[in-house]
Amino acid sequence: MLSTEAQQTLFTNARTHNGWQDKPVSDVLLHELYDLMKWAPTSANASPARIVFVKSDEQKSALLACMAEGNLEKTKTAPVTAIIGMDMAFYDQLPQLFPHADARSWFAGNQALIDATAFRNSSLQGAYLMLAARTLGLDCGPMSGFDADKVNATFFAGSEVKVNFICNLGYGDASKLHARGPRLSFEQACRIV
Amino acid sequence: MLSTEAQQTLFTNARTHNGWQDKPVSDVLLHELYDLMKWAPTSANASPARIVFVKSDEQKSALLACMAEGNLEKTKTAPVTAIIGMDMAFYDQLPQLFPHADARSWFAGNQALIDATAFRNSSLQGAYLMLAARTLGLDCGPMSGFDADKVNATFFAGSEVKVNFICNLGYGDASKLHARGPRLSFEQACRIV
Repeated sequence: MLSTEAQQTLFTNARTHNGWQDKPVSDVLLHELYDLMKWAPTSANASPARIVFVKSDEQKSALLACMAEGNLEKTKTAPVTAIIGMDMAFYDQLPQLFPHADARSWFAGNQALIDATAFRNSSLQGAYLMLAARTLGLDCGPMSGFDADKVNATFFAGSEVKVNFICNLGYGDASKLHARGPRLSFEQACRIV
Repeated sequence: MLSTEAQQTLFTNARTHNGWQDKPVSDVLLHELYDLMKWAPTSANASPARIVFVKSDEQKSALLACMAEGNLEKTKTAPVTAIIGMDMAFYDQLPQLFPHADARSWFAGNQALIDATAFRNSSLQGAYLMLAARTLGLDCGPMSGFDADKVNATFFAGSEVKVNFICNLGYGDASKLHARGPRLSFEQACRIV
């Protein structure tokens, strides 16, 4: 059981940030981030997420050309923007990732299962990335507003990877937070049977 | 930044469990679980996940009739099994969840956007549920092997909710763990540009 302070860092006090402090995020920290998130579970250990961490001015400009207008300023000022992609050929890695069975054969040729597995599990891994980032003291700002075809052409050309969602990372500027939105009650979202 | 011990509990030492101790999970703890996971981000705060916590023998039997054979024994012995569903009419809650704009109109009538938003964001929330469970000292065993139509007919009849995935919750029996699978290296899964 984690401490109340850890629960606050991960969930109860953590906020989606739109404004960023002028404080860099090192490549070492991005490696630490991956080395946490990679351990959380995916179906058949398939691990379909592929991540591009955009840091350079040149690549950030290329990404800004793909973003919806409401996401431009926050993406421009974030020290890192993570593009969470999904490898639609993830099953080709299963001989490495799931060596004790022919797991590749469970997927190859079944496009509906491939699509659902890639989307579900890369989304899980995107959530792991965000909570791993908070674990390391970073703040997150996830976004769905972008031109997916343009992101794919710019960052994943010549591969089987497709963008899932995009997430700014850095140290948030709490003075730029809006009021927190309400959540559904337990009774609205859950039941125990 | 969380402690090394917290990082171990969440990520580096946590394992997917298939065997369970004979130790119950209280309804109070399930409320605490939801009260953590609900705060993590979803697109437009849409919060599409709907969760059924299956505890009773009668409802567990009904669930077992939906599970793939390889998932039967672990689901039978888990003190709680969470069915993570997605409300395909999630946008009807946006006047409550996103009151400062007409967010409902962004989704209503756009089925492709509804489908992608429900699936992506209920998957994110499923990952939040698993890491919130670990935060509270519980272990998780997520599963994709089940008859989705049968789960929907048994647990979500007469609603717009569809199952996404299913996750056993409880206190794992470490003596029943298999060797841990390898993960992709940073260079295989990520790049910094």
